[in-house]
Amino acid sequence: MDDGGVRTLDWVGGGEAGGGAVEMVDQTALPAAYTVLRIDSVPDMVAAIRRLSVRGAPAIGVAGAFGVALAVQAHGTSGPAFDEAVASLRGARPTAVNLARMVDRAAARAPDGFDAVLAEAQAIRDEELAASVAMGNLGADLVLELTGRDDVRAMTICNTGGLATVERGTALAVIQTLHERGRLAEALALETRPLLQGARLTAWELDRMGAPHRLLVDSAGPFMLARGEADVVLTGADRVAANGDTANKIGTFSLALGARHAGVPFIVVAPESTVDADTPDGAGIAIEDRGADEVVSLAGVSTAPDGTAAANPAFDVTPAELITAVVTDQRIVRLDQHQTPG
Amino acid sequence: MDDGGVRTLDWVGGGEAGGGAVEMVDQTALPAAYTVLRIDSVPDMVAAIRRLSVRGAPAIGVAGAFGVALAVQAHGTSGPAFDEAVASLRGARPTAVNLARMVDRAAARAPDGFDAVLAEAQAIRDEELAASVAMGNLGADLVLELTGRDDVRAMTICNTGGLATVERGTALAVIQTLHERGRLAEALALETRPLLQGARLTAWELDRMGAPHRLLVDSAGPFMLARGEADVVLTGADRVAANGDTANKIGTFSLALGARHAGVPFIVVAPESTVDADTPDGAGIAIEDRGADEVVSLAGVSTAPDGTAAANPAFDVTPAELITAVVTDQRIVRLDQHQTPG
Repeated sequence: MDDGGVRTLDWVGGGEAGGGAVEMVDQTALPAAYTVLRIDSVPDMVAAIRRLSVRGAPAIGVAGAFGVALAVQAHGTSGPAFDEAVASLRGARPTAVNLARMVDRAAARAPDGFDAVLAEAQAIRDEELAASVAMGNLGADLVLELTGRDDVRAMTICNTGGLATVERGTALAVIQTLHERGRLAEALALETRPLLQGARLTAWELDRMGAPHRLLVDSAGPFMLARGEADVVLTGADRVAANGDTANKIGTFSLALGARHAGVPFIVVAPESTVDADTPDGAGIAIEDRGADEVVSLAGVSTAPDGTAAANPAFDVTPAELITAVVTDQRIVRLDQHQTPG
Repeated sequence: MDDGGVRTLDWVGGGEAGGGAVEMVDQTALPAAYTVLRIDSVPDMVAAIRRLSVRGAPAIGVAGAFGVALAVQAHGTSGPAFDEAVASLRGARPTAVNLARMVDRAAARAPDGFDAVLAEAQAIRDEELAASVAMGNLGADLVLELTGRDDVRAMTICNTGGLATVERGTALAVIQTLHERGRLAEALALETRPLLQGARLTAWELDRMGAPHRLLVDSAGPFMLARGEADVVLTGADRVAANGDTANKIGTFSLALGARHAGVPFIVVAPESTVDADTPDGAGIAIEDRGADEVVSLAGVSTAPDGTAAANPAFDVTPAELITAVVTDQRIVRLDQHQTPG
């Protein structure tokens, strides 16, 4: 696809005899450096997921599935060491449902051997790419319908592009599709503290795709909406509960409040695999607290007095009543019309 | 006052014959370094105000008034050079009403000579300190009444302590007073991007006063409120319009939306001098855009791809209907009971 997209991670080399590895763009190094990591063990994959070298719910799902192939390479298709490796992949991060789900899908093929596991992981990757294309089209159609505009000013948070999936993305895929159709006036990207995925990654992807954009500090989002500077808010999701409550990057809830106040549609874009029918509502979603270090420093620079304590919820939960619609690769769920995804 | 407070700026030396100067804590250097600047000319004072070495609406009002004394020292009590110096002080920053108002008060004494101007500036400084004490007491009384709690968890944004005024502050004076009364469970300080006044300055002041506190990224504020982690939000103000609409640091509006959603009181604390009866509502308040540099970098570290454009509104306007009360040094205006300040 000639779309300025990014191939975030893929399996390279090896086979049943071993020697295979996962290559991934190191997202912690962007935009200063484009570095490709070679991950050849489960502990290295868990560490890469934890430190956010790979991030975004769909991408860590694919990473986890490839991680199961690494587990088979190291430990065979069963036994305590294999089970422990799978469990460590499953638990590398708690909030996104995709990770555990995709690890389980790949691990379920272990009795059929390494090739079956790897094929399953590659199928998951291919499904995620196809899902991105579908979400982009469904989402762009809905945005144009709801806003009624010739060209759309779209606000977004965090990074939901090719880097967060395997190519194209979720919310950013909708923005990319609008841009490809000549219907994007401007993307407004929130920088997304503490780890600045919006500033570092989304701005970089928007630049690569040639889409007009401006960056905002996170707290400016709701006010820019109140001033009428955007027509729609598009976000990804780490987990969508059965009733539509959505866990996503910290700051999403605040944007949803701003969108509601401004009367602007608030659209969640996430693959069907993110919908967790087993979680009835947002109260059941674990919110990861990533500790003080990310808050009291930035790129190695201390931003607060030594020893300052911090709360660092990495995600928040946006209640379904603040969400206009959830767009998946298969359907549009109109929460504002009392539909539910689960 | 033995309160862990900070004397932010003061006049030193000199007199009618010249040689006087303003000494101020350089707030851009905190918390890494405690540096006292000596400012002995109007252009240096304008530059210090612009680069935020002195900041906070009350403090820049006092700085502007002392600036008029510097203008008299350099240019005498009238004439084009004096007028131009006064105009440059008046216009150093556009959003806070105090600056222009306090510059005008000091300049009005110029016909009576240097000593009268300096005495007026010092009176303004003393009034601001007395106002801080009064706001602290009125605000703490109101917080305890509204929350009905033995110990209060208070969320705040930006820096509204002694550094933002001349000692004690506005919203942070209320938190300090609660702490002195043994009624503060915890202060939750938002870091306040882009310039991190919360992380750099408020955390430093809370630490100096021995008050328990945690730091948050800005976008976590509304979600922490939704989770029931704070009992009240306290903010300062750069300008309060006649109807109660309040201009304050970017992010204040977002917090007010969060407080409303959570059913938590949202209290603005600002000296009477911040109330601008000549501005009917928030639509008449100019919002300073401080340019892209602050957004695309942090402490000299680039956070976005080179050349990334940004919107950087430094303030926002919180509509009166989201504000529970405005506490000044003289009164409590209950906006939730349809009182208005102007």
